[in-house]
Amino acid sequence: MSPRESEPLTREALERFAHTPDARLKQVMQSLVRHLHDFARDVQLTEAEWVQAIGFLTETGQTCTPSRQEFILLSDVLGLSMQTVVLNQARPAGCTESTVLGPFHVREAPLYENGADIANGAAGRPCTVRGQVRSVDGRPLAGALLDVWQADADGEYDVQKPGLAQAQARGKLHADADGRFEFRTIVAESYPIPTDGPVGRLLAATRRSSWRPAHLHFWIEAEGHETLVTHVFRRGDPHIATDPVFGVRQSLMADWREQPDGTTLLEYDFVLNPTVPNPPLREEPA
Amino acid sequence: MSPRESEPLTREALERFAHTPDARLKQVMQSLVRHLHDFARDVQLTEAEWVQAIGFLTETGQTCTPSRQEFILLSDVLGLSMQTVVLNQARPAGCTESTVLGPFHVREAPLYENGADIANGAAGRPCTVRGQVRSVDGRPLAGALLDVWQADADGEYDVQKPGLAQAQARGKLHADADGRFEFRTIVAESYPIPTDGPVGRLLAATRRSSWRPAHLHFWIEAEGHETLVTHVFRRGDPHIATDPVFGVRQSLMADWREQPDGTTLLEYDFVLNPTVPNPPLREEPA
Repeated sequence: MSPRESEPLTREALERFAHTPDARLKQVMQSLVRHLHDFARDVQLTEAEWVQAIGFLTETGQTCTPSRQEFILLSDVLGLSMQTVVLNQARPAGCTESTVLGPFHVREAPLYENGADIANGAAGRPCTVRGQVRSVDGRPLAGALLDVWQADADGEYDVQKPGLAQAQARGKLHADADGRFEFRTIVAESYPIPTDGPVGRLLAATRRSSWRPAHLHFWIEAEGHETLVTHVFRRGDPHIATDPVFGVRQSLMADWREQPDGTTLLEYDFVLNPTVPNPPLREEPA
Repeated sequence: MSPRESEPLTREALERFAHTPDARLKQVMQSLVRHLHDFARDVQLTEAEWVQAIGFLTETGQTCTPSRQEFILLSDVLGLSMQTVVLNQARPAGCTESTVLGPFHVREAPLYENGADIANGAAGRPCTVRGQVRSVDGRPLAGALLDVWQADADGEYDVQKPGLAQAQARGKLHADADGRFEFRTIVAESYPIPTDGPVGRLLAATRRSSWRPAHLHFWIEAEGHETLVTHVFRRGDPHIATDPVFGVRQSLMADWREQPDGTTLLEYDFVLNPTVPNPPLREEPA
């Protein structure tokens, strides 16, 4: 069917959103309609494919639970999450880059003392993490709040383990007066994103890797600064070039260094962008 | 952020789908990625909006039940369902036009005798519906199967009524040897699509009508012909210009005529497109 016959319908749909009182909602919905209809025309979407898409999206929604967010995963593997991060990352040179939140952040993680063991029994090789939180002018950010989370040696986050009562390899802590932080945890290992749902089937059908390169998640807040949501990646991880969620940035790679006592040490500093106080940038939907 | 900084990510996402063995899946996914990223760039999607979108889509999936399909409703109100219908409607002049399936079709409706009362107790004013099913060359299609469904006087389909054990205002029947069909039912009335879910909230926020103009659904199959999925709309319905699902076509409007005995009569003929036998075009996802 030619665009001539399908475009009046697109114009009608755009017109229907023309009376939206909120100007931003109007702009977003009209752009969405335009791109969605263009997509259907470009691929000449068949009715059988439409049925498949409806089934896929429905299953994606129904796979979500309080501890699993399959729609974030879908957005992640399409590169939409990282695209949103990149579009909103207008920071001065020298600031730490952001990356995707991922589906495993928890709003209420336990608060630890600086220096504590946040592994709390998680399986894995012992690892110490330390560094400093600074503003872009080099000033240490005293008392910055770090929220950290990671998978264990089995490649699972605590929230993925049925029946686990306490947080493991997850916690919050405050940097000291000099912006310095230190905590003990386990070595981050690469792991596959959940493959037993619709997103896993999509990756398999498109021959894409489901393995995320090893990384440690950070959500860092400091007064008068933009909240930073990022990962630190293990340099040399075999999956570093095929991260299914497109989260890797060159500047976010670091070395996990083996120490003489058999433990591992990661040192990484974070540089935040000063701004007027803002609510946290990102949180999972309620 | 300029396109210069966000486009490498789009290229990376496209490249990641390049090894999809199924050429059609590869084409669809790459086009989807391109349009999805273009949309995010065009509106400069914020992270708060991304969070809202994830929450909206998750709720849409979780609102679906065996008798409610909120994702079809979302596709409908964005004009994507009708766009898909239009794109796949390459038929000779004279064939009856298709329109959207809608979320209330049921695969296993009861089979009635031609001439029967399919209302089966549904509330509403009595109505007789009759007509003929023909091929595009005028030849009657003997024994054509008609699957019919509609809302009752309360604006509800049987599947929306909790605890209702039998089908109401829904059924299948075969046309006679001359392609003629007749059944008794109730007069179709306009009704709002479900407004208690995320799609209803979207319509409210964008000041769009949720009222579908009165219509009767048909799914018609005949050997050697394309399956026809369509509605017949009541001419003069006050909502005919603002159908929230964009289903109305001029050629699908008809008069429900009051008869001397106080009942109402709808006469409408259907013309099918001959083709090699094909599976039904559309069905709800399992």
